[in-house]
Amino acid sequence: MVSPGTVSRRLRLGMVGGGPGSLIGPVHRIAARLDDRFELVAGALSSDRDRARQGAAEVHIAPDRSYDTWQAMVAAEAARPDRIDVVAIVTPNHLHHGPAKAFMEAGIDVICDKPLTLNTAEAEDLVRVQQQTGRIFGVTHTYAGYPMVRQARAMVAAGAIGRVRLVNVEYVQSWLTEPLEATGNKQAGWRTDPAFSGAGGCVGDIGTHAYHLASFVSGMLPDAICADLTAFAPGRKLDDNVHILMRYGSGARGMIWATQVAPGNDNGIRVRIYGETGGISWFQEQPNDLHFTRFGEAPQRLGRAGVMLGGIPRPYEPRAAVGHPEGYLEAFAQLYTDMAEQMTARNEGRAAAPDSLQLATIGEGLIGMRFIDAAIASSAQGGTWVSPDSAR
Amino acid sequence: MVSPGTVSRRLRLGMVGGGPGSLIGPVHRIAARLDDRFELVAGALSSDRDRARQGAAEVHIAPDRSYDTWQAMVAAEAARPDRIDVVAIVTPNHLHHGPAKAFMEAGIDVICDKPLTLNTAEAEDLVRVQQQTGRIFGVTHTYAGYPMVRQARAMVAAGAIGRVRLVNVEYVQSWLTEPLEATGNKQAGWRTDPAFSGAGGCVGDIGTHAYHLASFVSGMLPDAICADLTAFAPGRKLDDNVHILMRYGSGARGMIWATQVAPGNDNGIRVRIYGETGGISWFQEQPNDLHFTRFGEAPQRLGRAGVMLGGIPRPYEPRAAVGHPEGYLEAFAQLYTDMAEQMTARNEGRAAAPDSLQLATIGEGLIGMRFIDAAIASSAQGGTWVSPDSAR
Amino acid sequence: MVSPGTVSRRLRLGMVGGGPGSLIGPVHRIAARLDDRFELVAGALSSDRDRARQGAAEVHIAPDRSYDTWQAMVAAEAARPDRIDVVAIVTPNHLHHGPAKAFMEAGIDVICDKPLTLNTAEAEDLVRVQQQTGRIFGVTHTYAGYPMVRQARAMVAAGAIGRVRLVNVEYVQSWLTEPLEATGNKQAGWRTDPAFSGAGGCVGDIGTHAYHLASFVSGMLPDAICADLTAFAPGRKLDDNVHILMRYGSGARGMIWATQVAPGNDNGIRVRIYGETGGISWFQEQPNDLHFTRFGEAPQRLGRAGVMLGGIPRPYEPRAAVGHPEGYLEAFAQLYTDMAEQMTARNEGRAAAPDSLQLATIGEGLIGMRFIDAAIASSAQGGTWVSPDSAR
Amino acid sequence: MVSPGTVSRRLRLGMVGGGPGSLIGPVHRIAARLDDRFELVAGALSSDRDRARQGAAEVHIAPDRSYDTWQAMVAAEAARPDRIDVVAIVTPNHLHHGPAKAFMEAGIDVICDKPLTLNTAEAEDLVRVQQQTGRIFGVTHTYAGYPMVRQARAMVAAGAIGRVRLVNVEYVQSWLTEPLEATGNKQAGWRTDPAFSGAGGCVGDIGTHAYHLASFVSGMLPDAICADLTAFAPGRKLDDNVHILMRYGSGARGMIWATQVAPGNDNGIRVRIYGETGGISWFQEQPNDLHFTRFGEAPQRLGRAGVMLGGIPRPYEPRAAVGHPEGYLEAFAQLYTDMAEQMTARNEGRAAAPDSLQLATIGEGLIGMRFIDAAIASSAQGGTWVSPDSAR
Repeated sequence: MVSPGTVSRRLRLGMVGGGPGSLIGPVHRIAARLDDRFELVAGALSSDRDRARQGAAEVHIAPDRSYDTWQAMVAAEAARPDRIDVVAIVTPNHLHHGPAKAFMEAGIDVICDKPLTLNTAEAEDLVRVQQQTGRIFGVTHTYAGYPMVRQARAMVAAGAIGRVRLVNVEYVQSWLTEPLEATGNKQAGWRTDPAFSGAGGCVGDIGTHAYHLASFVSGMLPDAICADLTAFAPGRKLDDNVHILMRYGSGARGMIWATQVAPGNDNGIRVRIYGETGGISWFQEQPNDLHFTRFGEAPQRLGRAGVMLGGIPRPYEPRAAVGHPEGYLEAFAQLYTDMAEQMTARNEGRAAAPDSLQLATIGEGLIGMRFIDAAIASSAQGGTWVSPDSAR
Repeated sequence: MVSPGTVSRRLRLGMVGGGPGSLIGPVHRIAARLDDRFELVAGALSSDRDRARQGAAEVHIAPDRSYDTWQAMVAAEAARPDRIDVVAIVTPNHLHHGPAKAFMEAGIDVICDKPLTLNTAEAEDLVRVQQQTGRIFGVTHTYAGYPMVRQARAMVAAGAIGRVRLVNVEYVQSWLTEPLEATGNKQAGWRTDPAFSGAGGCVGDIGTHAYHLASFVSGMLPDAICADLTAFAPGRKLDDNVHILMRYGSGARGMIWATQVAPGNDNGIRVRIYGETGGISWFQEQPNDLHFTRFGEAPQRLGRAGVMLGGIPRPYEPRAAVGHPEGYLEAFAQLYTDMAEQMTARNEGRAAAPDSLQLATIGEGLIGMRFIDAAIASSAQGGTWVSPDSAR
Repeated sequence: MVSPGTVSRRLRLGMVGGGPGSLIGPVHRIAARLDDRFELVAGALSSDRDRARQGAAEVHIAPDRSYDTWQAMVAAEAARPDRIDVVAIVTPNHLHHGPAKAFMEAGIDVICDKPLTLNTAEAEDLVRVQQQTGRIFGVTHTYAGYPMVRQARAMVAAGAIGRVRLVNVEYVQSWLTEPLEATGNKQAGWRTDPAFSGAGGCVGDIGTHAYHLASFVSGMLPDAICADLTAFAPGRKLDDNVHILMRYGSGARGMIWATQVAPGNDNGIRVRIYGETGGISWFQEQPNDLHFTRFGEAPQRLGRAGVMLGGIPRPYEPRAAVGHPEGYLEAFAQLYTDMAEQMTARNEGRAAAPDSLQLATIGEGLIGMRFIDAAIASSAQGGTWVSPDSAR
Repeated sequence: MVSPGTVSRRLRLGMVGGGPGSLIGPVHRIAARLDDRFELVAGALSSDRDRARQGAAEVHIAPDRSYDTWQAMVAAEAARPDRIDVVAIVTPNHLHHGPAKAFMEAGIDVICDKPLTLNTAEAEDLVRVQQQTGRIFGVTHTYAGYPMVRQARAMVAAGAIGRVRLVNVEYVQSWLTEPLEATGNKQAGWRTDPAFSGAGGCVGDIGTHAYHLASFVSGMLPDAICADLTAFAPGRKLDDNVHILMRYGSGARGMIWATQVAPGNDNGIRVRIYGETGGISWFQEQPNDLHFTRFGEAPQRLGRAGVMLGGIPRPYEPRAAVGHPEGYLEAFAQLYTDMAEQMTARNEGRAAAPDSLQLATIGEGLIGMRFIDAAIASSAQGGTWVSPDSAR
């Protein structure tokens, strides 16, 4: 969404990963383009030199800014007067820490895919570097970019459902029902291999999204979780189903269910939050609706750009008119726009629009890593209650 | 559903409880009437003599068969040549064991509301009496009476989704969001009072329905459960929210969520079962649809009386044509019709229609009581894994 | 629904038609039984003597009150001191007029299936007889028996959506997509045969339901309609698809679409009414929800027994608790209960409960016949505008 | 999205209209950007010089290519070696014909908003010019850009539902329920003013979308239509509600309902097509689902990127993984990508990808204008049947 009034230059974007065959690389590029705050000018799109160059040509990166390695990219870009403002890291988890650290140290902001790193130690190291360098660092927890999710968060924060009692998030997929990794499928391969994903499978891939959403909308993090992780597909090395109970310091309770083995579901994210005076729910496959009920009144369907609650300002400007659904790419674009707003505001010496601060920070990335640790520890101990802060 | 061909006499039904102001009494009576297999001829409808008589008159029970106590009713009916064939016990939980035992011992079959008794000891005693007397004893786990739930069970049993991996049942209500029991509300009062309900609140009232459904459709009982029970409403004596993880001997995993404090939900029962080759789901508020997916194919919506799966015979005859929704009362009526079929078959010396054996037995009632014990024990120990068999 | 307070005797019900193989006969019987205001005591269930007797035994009609013809039934019942209070006529359309007239003249009230008769002349004759005899005469326009339809009507009448502008009713089925009548199917056979159905096929069978609903909820009848009737299935003698535009004297406009040839739809009745200040809609396959929106506010979902609108009294008492779906049989039962209430009130010399007067009258049956005439006339003239009052 | 492979340069895009306050201008720009086939380099964004310049700066158009009038833009761009390849015309209807003609005559391709022009004479003139100049000319009938709409069209064309019998399209909005134009609202103002919109209000604004969709999915145009157009809001100069019956030469029948005065609906476009062997339906507010039923089988929900029908190739590559909803902007982007593909293919001397030819042509724009004429003529004559070809 273009900010009204002032006109700022487009930010120069580089990308690590995202070459031919990438799933998430094109999504990042569309997202960066959608609100026109970035131009993609450099990349190390693949560890394979030819694929890197082919990919760069396809996305209109000039040949002299297509690099064969991210190390070469850091070195060359840091030396240019028109160097990139920000790098997007869209590689598998094991290749987040290295480039993220190097680009930050070279004075370049970072947008990084989730989960933040391969393990918590790497994440803590990145947090240290970020604090030393002061770079802006965004983590792409996409579902927090949906307008109705932000609306839900704002409503909960404003007390629309009263003090929160229950947090229920599920993320239900089916694509790993069979051992797809055994067929050579690239996406399944790295996501089920500890060398590329870390110790968490489903819990890292989509469980962290669910955990972030639970916290994003409710405004709370649990004190303790009790997890049961299972690998159902024959030969699978990492969990493909995650059952978690949560306890909050306030007395609230929660559940997370994340699975990759539930036929009939594509990307069924559902968030339901209940408080002392009302309830709110959102379902990702119908993302333009938010369901809200005040206890004792009729359930309401709040539209994306439509009717909002008295006293709660709508936290965004719609890109398209009411009734014209926005989807996943728009939500992803929101994250890039948040990043652009934070960067531009800093560059222009002004405060960033508050809404842009909802982009997940590196600190939230670390929280996600600790969640993975805690879930794995709880499950490994047979399903005991573990504090996410002390999981390692 | 009228059984074709032979014509059997209507069975004589008595009722304990269900007088003026009762919630479930009228439901039992409608259910008994709907398929015309019973006639209500006797009752001890209330512990208040005047209310008992007024209620009896309203439901066309002859004055001489309206009794002031269930004890008087047992004695008098047992002595009549046209005595009742079966008694429906629709009182709060603390008043199940006494009449159920007495009527069985008097040679009268029993339909009893759930949960079976106030505690497991009472349930075990009833099981003993039932085994000694050989009476037919049905427990009204209503949701197992819905055609599409039975269809789901038949499909799972026939292997339509392959070996079961995941069982997810939720039962989401809102009516106890506030401390309604403090206002003198009768239904809320006894359901939140241990003296009438036993040690389980939400877990006994609706958790047992969820647990029965999980087992009914999946065909499995868990080896261990891990429960977190909470009472959210100020001053509430029993749990109003139940979070449970389940582990099955087969390696399958499950979750139960039962709550009475989620505004925006009336009676949101949702059953989802996933196996190695497919998934199936049902939602009680749209009970005429069954959602079925074979992994790798498009999701299908199976109608109540519509298109069934190849090789799986439709397990029922519809009362109304396709597209004409059946609801809760029809499901309840199915339980009465199952009971009638079992009783009539015995009376006529023939085998009961197999479908009628899906009525929950007294043994399943006992399983429900052990589930409540296990859930409470697990939660009391801070959320540990407990076997439902060894809970006490 | 059990009437509070006083206790009235059950009304004695007879039935013409509804023998073995009947679709609607069992529905009438369940409906009569559900609220326990009737007992079925006599019948001429089939024109085939053996089937009539077999059917009577199955529904517990005593042999001496099972008649071989409706003529015999009129004669014999009229002579009994315990004669039937009311007769339900559930035969194909060509067999409505004869028995309806004869029973009225014998002093017996009538419940008659829709459409009222084979043609408008017969309908006008029945209206005359009804006026002469003063009998209570109900027509089973089932969908007007749904609680949420009555709620919608009450809300429109109370001004909840302002002055009505648009009326949109569709009734979408698929069962006659192929020429089922050519296979010997009994239900398809008579419904597509002018000798049994009259001149209207789809327009008479379900179009009249749509037309009645449009009027029932909006409170208006159109001044003129423009119809396009089509028979799609090869060899079909009567229309199986109906497109109608409507104009109201108030300036409002409407559309009716009724079809029997739309695969994927079972019984998809949808009513949508829009006024100057709001809109309301109801869909029969999810009958417990009513969707209501005040212009400029968020859409609301009103539950069957749940949250009602300020100032509009809930027009009914629910049979089952909120969230426990009621369906088609309960709606049908409502019509019988309305009839019972009207009859009992007359017998007891008191005014009937106002809600019971929503049962469709013989006059509304005549309006339906005139609608069929008008639709056929308009379509036959190539789709011109015709007044329903002057159609013949 | 057309699959890449070869790398083509980005096409240079100009824009007429779309300055500050424009509703559809930003949508065109996002759509042009989303798949990265265009760069916006020139514009005459507003008839107000200051607003034109401010708008140009906001969208990164260089000052020397921001023009004060479209006439100046044609002249200047035509003279540049790096002149625009294509112009997007996003002004109100009365300002389509002039620039469209001039740019075509200057050798520049055109993307034009719908309806094509102010009246049919203008449209016919444009068609003439297009034929003389041979320019590529696309009309933005957005809803034909949704993947599932294209899937539906491909399935109907492939015979998935058999010979088509019924076409039902509705387009239901609420935003003009009140006389919004009287408040100074810009969007409402020009859409309800014949000087800017032409003789059709709702029928031109959204009725043409519905008509195009009916034809796009069914593959048929009607022989005759019967229309009833109404203006409900007080003082409104053009229709705000459209009821249309349709007859096809094949014997098929159809209905269109377009309205702007139905509270509770935002942009409720619903397409339902039924044939001799099946049915298909799509609802714009849940655009990633396509509902398909073979007669006699269970209804299926086909996902956007998910399970497709045997033998029918999926006509597109998804931008985001299955289960990640695409929406309105992606559909709009598809039109731009189709345009890019047609232009690039021509420039490179190859055949365009067949899918790209689904972009609405100028001929289809003319068909839309004739539809408006026919609807107005039919309604003006009191609702008679009129052929869309001979309407003027």
